[in-house]
Amino acid sequence: MLSKNEIKYIQSLGHKKRRDEEGLFLLEGSKMVAELIMHYPSQVVRLYATDTFFQQHPAASAIEQHQKVTEDELARISQLQTPNQALAVLRYFTPEEFQQPANSWTLALDGIRDPGNMGTIIRLADWFGIQQVICSPDCADIYNPKVVQSTMGSIMRVNVYEKDLPLFLSQQQVTVAGAVLGGETLGSYQFPEAGILVIGNESNGIRPDVLATLSTKLMIPRFGEAESLNAAIATSIFLWELKRQ
Amino acid sequence: MLSKNEIKYIQSLGHKKRRDEEGLFLLEGSKMVAELIMHYPSQVVRLYATDTFFQQHPAASAIEQHQKVTEDELARISQLQTPNQALAVLRYFTPEEFQQPANSWTLALDGIRDPGNMGTIIRLADWFGIQQVICSPDCADIYNPKVVQSTMGSIMRVNVYEKDLPLFLSQQQVTVAGAVLGGETLGSYQFPEAGILVIGNESNGIRPDVLATLSTKLMIPRFGEAESLNAAIATSIFLWELKRQ
Repeated sequence: MLSKNEIKYIQSLGHKKRRDEEGLFLLEGSKMVAELIMHYPSQVVRLYATDTFFQQHPAASAIEQHQKVTEDELARISQLQTPNQALAVLRYFTPEEFQQPANSWTLALDGIRDPGNMGTIIRLADWFGIQQVICSPDCADIYNPKVVQSTMGSIMRVNVYEKDLPLFLSQQQVTVAGAVLGGETLGSYQFPEAGILVIGNESNGIRPDVLATLSTKLMIPRFGEAESLNAAIATSIFLWELKRQ
Repeated sequence: MLSKNEIKYIQSLGHKKRRDEEGLFLLEGSKMVAELIMHYPSQVVRLYATDTFFQQHPAASAIEQHQKVTEDELARISQLQTPNQALAVLRYFTPEEFQQPANSWTLALDGIRDPGNMGTIIRLADWFGIQQVICSPDCADIYNPKVVQSTMGSIMRVNVYEKDLPLFLSQQQVTVAGAVLGGETLGSYQFPEAGILVIGNESNGIRPDVLATLSTKLMIPRFGEAESLNAAIATSIFLWELKRQ
């Protein structure tokens, strides 16, 4: 049985302030949690699931901190309108854990404010095999339960780190590329094997102090009249171009 | 002064049923309406605007059916929370007006249900210079005031037609390409000068009766693990690949 304090504690992780203090967030639903415990068990700090879930997924009992809960208890700790068998508590990646790989690309997000864009960008990173995303501190909260669920599991496979972007980027030895008006036309640029791709804010683009750290300025050419592309759309075009080569 | 009946009539165009009956929809806001009357005056059936707007935009008085309204009157006919100087009534394109151009591509949407995706796809078409979009009858309503406004003016430059897709596509002489699991890898396919690109529903993809009309089956290769890409994202990658060649 769950204690009142434990219920309160898990509920409190629905709030950003508490998540940030604890460095923990929630992932829910039988399908995603089943995938999590199968493939990424080391990320799980604690698992709460119904009897049915434990019976169907023997790996669940191998999670060190696991607890069987009733449907009623699950409903009390869940952030979903329709709780679904399992809730896992996961830990944040700390900024120190990030390592730029020698042979792949990292995505860096500069002030992406729309939670929908954040979720879409994480799914895109996952589709294109980008395993690391750096967020400036003012990005929409990736660990918000709705954003977590909207990534459809991609949040397990894409590691997200929060960093002071200008400082971080200025310390990197790899190519730092970003979309800038008047940059080199995407499609003529040859992407090196590794680098960091910076995506700017929906309305204002990449901020000046981040802009100053770019080694490569690129531009998605416009063939018609629309004023702009949204941040997730721009990300998709950049990542496809990067990978198609 | 606006009559009660006229106010009621314009208000009624906030509803899809009435819009479809009349073949009319609303576009609002000083910036978009100013662009509309400058570049696409023939699309305007009627214009309502404040004195300030008429003073700043002499072209407004050249619209045959134009009427000066007070701020209060504008507030009564507007669908916006913050009405902004001008409201235009535009006519739908009828299905018969569509003509497949010999040297460019048309986009065909098969059951795109999310209004946000519809708006984004219209903006994408505009960015990539695609001037015609065909929608199946069960697509989200492009003439919904919120969708119209979300296109940020692209709805003026992209002509949208509603058609029975399987019938329409089966009658075309050009390449009909679409995204299908197991199709040819995008990036190796050479797009011809003209054709129709079919984008399928967010969850179910292209329907069987539409699938049967495709002459070219393509696939966006996956480099990671995400299960799917959303419809607007897939559209952006296809259009960029089409244009970059």
